[in-house]
Amino acid sequence: MINGERTISRPLRWAMVGGGRTGQVGYKHRTGALRDGTYQLLAGAFDLDAARGRDFGVRLGVAADRCYATYEELIKGEAGRADGVEVVSVATPNFTHYEITKACLKAGLHVICEKPLFFTTAECDEIAALAKEKNLVVGVTYGFTGHPLVHQMAAMVKKSLLGDIRIVDLAYTHGFNAGDDTGAGEAVRWRTNPKTAGPTFVLGDIGTHLYYLSELVLPHLKLEKLLCDRKAFIPTRAPLEDHATVLMHYDNGARARLWVSSVDAGNMGSQRYRFVGSKASVAWSDSHPDQLVYEVQGEPGRILHHGMPYLEPESLAIDRMGALHTEGLGDSWSNIYLWIAEAIDAARRGDAAFLKTHHYPGIHAGTEGVRWLEACVRSADAGAAWVDFH
Amino acid sequence: MINGERTISRPLRWAMVGGGRTGQVGYKHRTGALRDGTYQLLAGAFDLDAARGRDFGVRLGVAADRCYATYEELIKGEAGRADGVEVVSVATPNFTHYEITKACLKAGLHVICEKPLFFTTAECDEIAALAKEKNLVVGVTYGFTGHPLVHQMAAMVKKSLLGDIRIVDLAYTHGFNAGDDTGAGEAVRWRTNPKTAGPTFVLGDIGTHLYYLSELVLPHLKLEKLLCDRKAFIPTRAPLEDHATVLMHYDNGARARLWVSSVDAGNMGSQRYRFVGSKASVAWSDSHPDQLVYEVQGEPGRILHHGMPYLEPESLAIDRMGALHTEGLGDSWSNIYLWIAEAIDAARRGDAAFLKTHHYPGIHAGTEGVRWLEACVRSADAGAAWVDFH
Amino acid sequence: MINGERTISRPLRWAMVGGGRTGQVGYKHRTGALRDGTYQLLAGAFDLDAARGRDFGVRLGVAADRCYATYEELIKGEAGRADGVEVVSVATPNFTHYEITKACLKAGLHVICEKPLFFTTAECDEIAALAKEKNLVVGVTYGFTGHPLVHQMAAMVKKSLLGDIRIVDLAYTHGFNAGDDTGAGEAVRWRTNPKTAGPTFVLGDIGTHLYYLSELVLPHLKLEKLLCDRKAFIPTRAPLEDHATVLMHYDNGARARLWVSSVDAGNMGSQRYRFVGSKASVAWSDSHPDQLVYEVQGEPGRILHHGMPYLEPESLAIDRMGALHTEGLGDSWSNIYLWIAEAIDAARRGDAAFLKTHHYPGIHAGTEGVRWLEACVRSADAGAAWVDFH
Amino acid sequence: MINGERTISRPLRWAMVGGGRTGQVGYKHRTGALRDGTYQLLAGAFDLDAARGRDFGVRLGVAADRCYATYEELIKGEAGRADGVEVVSVATPNFTHYEITKACLKAGLHVICEKPLFFTTAECDEIAALAKEKNLVVGVTYGFTGHPLVHQMAAMVKKSLLGDIRIVDLAYTHGFNAGDDTGAGEAVRWRTNPKTAGPTFVLGDIGTHLYYLSELVLPHLKLEKLLCDRKAFIPTRAPLEDHATVLMHYDNGARARLWVSSVDAGNMGSQRYRFVGSKASVAWSDSHPDQLVYEVQGEPGRILHHGMPYLEPESLAIDRMGALHTEGLGDSWSNIYLWIAEAIDAARRGDAAFLKTHHYPGIHAGTEGVRWLEACVRSADAGAAWVDFH
Repeated sequence: MINGERTISRPLRWAMVGGGRTGQVGYKHRTGALRDGTYQLLAGAFDLDAARGRDFGVRLGVAADRCYATYEELIKGEAGRADGVEVVSVATPNFTHYEITKACLKAGLHVICEKPLFFTTAECDEIAALAKEKNLVVGVTYGFTGHPLVHQMAAMVKKSLLGDIRIVDLAYTHGFNAGDDTGAGEAVRWRTNPKTAGPTFVLGDIGTHLYYLSELVLPHLKLEKLLCDRKAFIPTRAPLEDHATVLMHYDNGARARLWVSSVDAGNMGSQRYRFVGSKASVAWSDSHPDQLVYEVQGEPGRILHHGMPYLEPESLAIDRMGALHTEGLGDSWSNIYLWIAEAIDAARRGDAAFLKTHHYPGIHAGTEGVRWLEACVRSADAGAAWVDFH
Repeated sequence: MINGERTISRPLRWAMVGGGRTGQVGYKHRTGALRDGTYQLLAGAFDLDAARGRDFGVRLGVAADRCYATYEELIKGEAGRADGVEVVSVATPNFTHYEITKACLKAGLHVICEKPLFFTTAECDEIAALAKEKNLVVGVTYGFTGHPLVHQMAAMVKKSLLGDIRIVDLAYTHGFNAGDDTGAGEAVRWRTNPKTAGPTFVLGDIGTHLYYLSELVLPHLKLEKLLCDRKAFIPTRAPLEDHATVLMHYDNGARARLWVSSVDAGNMGSQRYRFVGSKASVAWSDSHPDQLVYEVQGEPGRILHHGMPYLEPESLAIDRMGALHTEGLGDSWSNIYLWIAEAIDAARRGDAAFLKTHHYPGIHAGTEGVRWLEACVRSADAGAAWVDFH
Repeated sequence: MINGERTISRPLRWAMVGGGRTGQVGYKHRTGALRDGTYQLLAGAFDLDAARGRDFGVRLGVAADRCYATYEELIKGEAGRADGVEVVSVATPNFTHYEITKACLKAGLHVICEKPLFFTTAECDEIAALAKEKNLVVGVTYGFTGHPLVHQMAAMVKKSLLGDIRIVDLAYTHGFNAGDDTGAGEAVRWRTNPKTAGPTFVLGDIGTHLYYLSELVLPHLKLEKLLCDRKAFIPTRAPLEDHATVLMHYDNGARARLWVSSVDAGNMGSQRYRFVGSKASVAWSDSHPDQLVYEVQGEPGRILHHGMPYLEPESLAIDRMGALHTEGLGDSWSNIYLWIAEAIDAARRGDAAFLKTHHYPGIHAGTEGVRWLEACVRSADAGAAWVDFH
Repeated sequence: MINGERTISRPLRWAMVGGGRTGQVGYKHRTGALRDGTYQLLAGAFDLDAARGRDFGVRLGVAADRCYATYEELIKGEAGRADGVEVVSVATPNFTHYEITKACLKAGLHVICEKPLFFTTAECDEIAALAKEKNLVVGVTYGFTGHPLVHQMAAMVKKSLLGDIRIVDLAYTHGFNAGDDTGAGEAVRWRTNPKTAGPTFVLGDIGTHLYYLSELVLPHLKLEKLLCDRKAFIPTRAPLEDHATVLMHYDNGARARLWVSSVDAGNMGSQRYRFVGSKASVAWSDSHPDQLVYEVQGEPGRILHHGMPYLEPESLAIDRMGALHTEGLGDSWSNIYLWIAEAIDAARRGDAAFLKTHHYPGIHAGTEGVRWLEACVRSADAGAAWVDFH
């Protein structure tokens, strides 16, 4: 179990770009990063409104002179300090991810970026090369994949408790965009504009979570081809989608179906995953976050509870609250942030051996997410036709 | 509420073909038919093993001389009696449905047949013409669609409580065929042999339930095209499938996804339906059979309980147990059997006006199910390609 | 599994007293009795309104001249027929149970009676003696205790899968009487009047179900003392109660708590049972009727599904729908009615050996329910004090 | 929503006594305190094993020379520093709470203490007087009562959405002590020894949570009398209890039942609360932490989801993750720690007006918990008899 003991050599000096008072996601970054003293929030360019951003930063405990108006000023300002930040989180609209990440890396700063990472795999490849050259880490905040029961699923698949994987059923749906966007604020509107959101809406916004999850649980399988049927039920969102179904075929013959939607009116259960093998299945949903359903055909279903000694070591090692006590989304983010910190620490120390086996959502995971989005769009644009993945 | 009062002029004289001691489905027919005195079980050809079938029939209360060895003998024997049966239920393997139904109709007997009705729509059309000519009823036992909360869903859609339908999500999966069929009895094996099962396995066996349900709830929508990705995870079942995903597009732009599987290891929740509209959603699953989830975007979710006065009249009228008391699958079958009896009674009486508006799963519903299976196979055979439905 | 094959020598000739068109419970008796041809409904005194009762009976298929105005006329009329009924179900308000049962027994008729059986154990003892003298059966309709998963619980306790029983937690609550009774019909009002309801309201109406269930699952334990805290939240119901908590101590040291209420506003989950032993627990609720939760301390929880081969034979033998298919309350009533029929058949045949081991809710179960109510009232009247049970 | 902005004038200098590497609860304190920069962990006496405690503290980021061997040394050492801590959390076995709290207060330090606060109300009163004299805060970590949906329940009761409160049903049970304590570590054993645990085991350990919750939701009701039936199913735990049922009567006529157990084999659902009024009920359980069930009699049940705009402002104000995203136990602890910090800050600033209306679990809440335990023991010792509460 994680109990707050430091696993890195010293706290990381950290800044945020975006994630200001009116944003939805900033607090998730902060609560994920700050609870264990792994990161110290020392600077930020929190808001397009510089005064509001400064006021906000000060209330977060950041010195006023390190609350910058823009990310460019932040990079410049911090570069001039002996105690300047060394890692920057990017919690801004999609279209700025690439330029901010690139600028940070060029300035020698590690980056933690929101998903979807960038607009194209070409951008991803360029950034990957730059990060490699600079010996810097790029982490991607696939926030829920830090949950101990997600890693329990992965460990069970690895141990062949499920047999050969046959069926993958993934969904992440909600109804917050069921109505049209008239009167909606910019926080909604940028997500449905290709210029600011990129080539997708819900596929990138929530589908990439599911795709990364499938990679995490099924690292031994290779996606061969997919079909994406996407649709904007609110026509002004076209060509972007507010609903999509993706069918996928794996190299072992497994079949996946994946559903993302932001017009699934009233649904608050949001995420549910099911992996079916020849012997058994595992299923998890964030509406029962403390439980994993494990079903062996012909036997009573089993309800595994987080933090219990019968779980796999991989799951127990990352539990924070302990059995009986709800492990929340914030705890999951803390794990993601911790793993990225450990990567940064190893990069700083030049510990290549550690990095070789250390798992965290990095540039590769981000790139694969973008590659998957490109394939989805290619399929959808061809009339929901099958396309090869690679 | 249904309380056992007779709605037809007199009980129907009834026989069964199949549904013997070792079959899985016979009791569902009997408990559905007999509890209200609507049908009287007077004859049967219950079993391929004539002696066993006679012994079984006698223990069901059928006179020994009306327990026949074959359906041909049954038809002949009953035709010779003044009190001969007038309606026959067919609970036999798929490949016999067509010939038994045809023979019964020719002999002037109404028919109640298991799904999938026949192998081809050509057969369906021929039987429909014959039934029309003879003024006879053909009912199809889509057993779960008699549930009061299924009809609540339909009534809510009809009243536009959901707004425009956007998304349909249907699944009926279990894992009883997760293993291979080595050592399985004939009751399993006939289902995976094209000669006895017809062109599909799970699509016909359980998928037709879902498709009929979609027609029941969404009578105003027209299915335009579909894509079916089917697979036999147990290779000896090919070309039939033990898993299939079907994507569907409706004329109003709605999107449906439908999943059937008999290799969904360990899953006992089996059926779940969700209809999403522009304003709200309804969802039902037989693992919480007494509850309907009704979710208006932006409002608390609502849990509707069967038998409660706030439900639509269409639902309350067909409730049997009353609120607080579990309405089981048997109750649902009783409703289906009752509606078919009412159709037979009206046909006998020549009450065309009644038949015009009376709803029950009849030859049209059976035919549409087969048409849907044909389209699924056409799509699957083309490599899971989109095909027009009509 | 039960598939409708007859287990008795011939169908029983059956009549109902009460259970008319406007009653709540009559259909449960009929659907329980009639589906398998075990009983034939041949006569009735269905309603205080004789004309309405006759019209109703005829629509149930009873001959008009066997639809009687009163139970006295029924007994007299049927006694005069060679094909007169041999068993009578009593589905009338509590205060009439004793006199109708007594009259029937005196006339040589078996009786199936609603709970709570009578007002006093003295009445019970008198009736028990009369039934014994006449070699007649008195069955009591504890309707839900025919469920296969209830018998699974009993079988697991018997096999010591739970270890020593420590804690029993039983509840049956709803909110249908949360409001006062102004404007309520007689069907509600008789239940809260001591003259018609007897010494209790919810304790007798629903608490006796729970108490019988505890006897069924824990036949090896002896209740030593109890404490009952009862209350009428609607004051006009006093001295009867619409809410009660009963604490119980067993001879092995086990502790039970039991809650009944008809003012539990909005609750539709109604029945839930939990038995905790030194090794494991079992729990069941009619809101998830197809599932039994079995929890061994320190292991994953198990979800047992009705009809599955891993269940105990006692449970599988009485399953009607089979796994995946919802077993409803009606199916449970059918089992109760079947077991009572088997007792009647054995009594008719003079098969004492069968009766010695045959389990059904009979006069003893009814008497113990009344004894428990007497103890509850004694405790409540003493200010919710502890009282010895025997 | 809480987004990490500081609500106090500056971070508090904080130390922990107990909560070391092998303890169960220390991380809950730390994650609750540290994520928003409200507290800075600067010192500690984490462990009875001084070397292990120092090593642990250093890994938490505490300077080695501020990792003390005992709480006495901590108080002395910090008193000698200009930057000494100002608030101390006590996460040690029950029998040390009183002496550590007293010593801290005498040294001018605010205290945050685990429940149950002390052994007797006399001790509580003494400490309350001391804290008042010193103008210091004593907070008590009733950890789950920081959850936004708990405060939603309280707000709904306050707005009379439930009508008059009639029934309160509270339970907190698990099975971790179902086996005997042979071989159990000291972390288990001190809890069942009256010398170290005080006059109760589960009543104090988990029952006080429930009692505080009832006070939070029902501040307008006065508990008049109670009855406590307690038992040690593992005999060596006597006279302490591993199971207890408490019945309670309120001044408005409401009835409560409360169940605590650590021998409820296999139960992982642990906490569930239900408040029933004359119009409606609310219910919450930590096994579905994001949902509140709100049931108006005669209407569909409603599922309220945390973070949604339709909730009461009191609930929305303290939400951290936002709708769709699981609010965990750690988030709830953060709220409790924040409210205590705000009280300390106000005390420091001499802001009596703020303190007058500011709600947090303080010395009064702790005292009432101990008073309730005393009444429970009094009742149990009298043979589970009714006792007046005050």
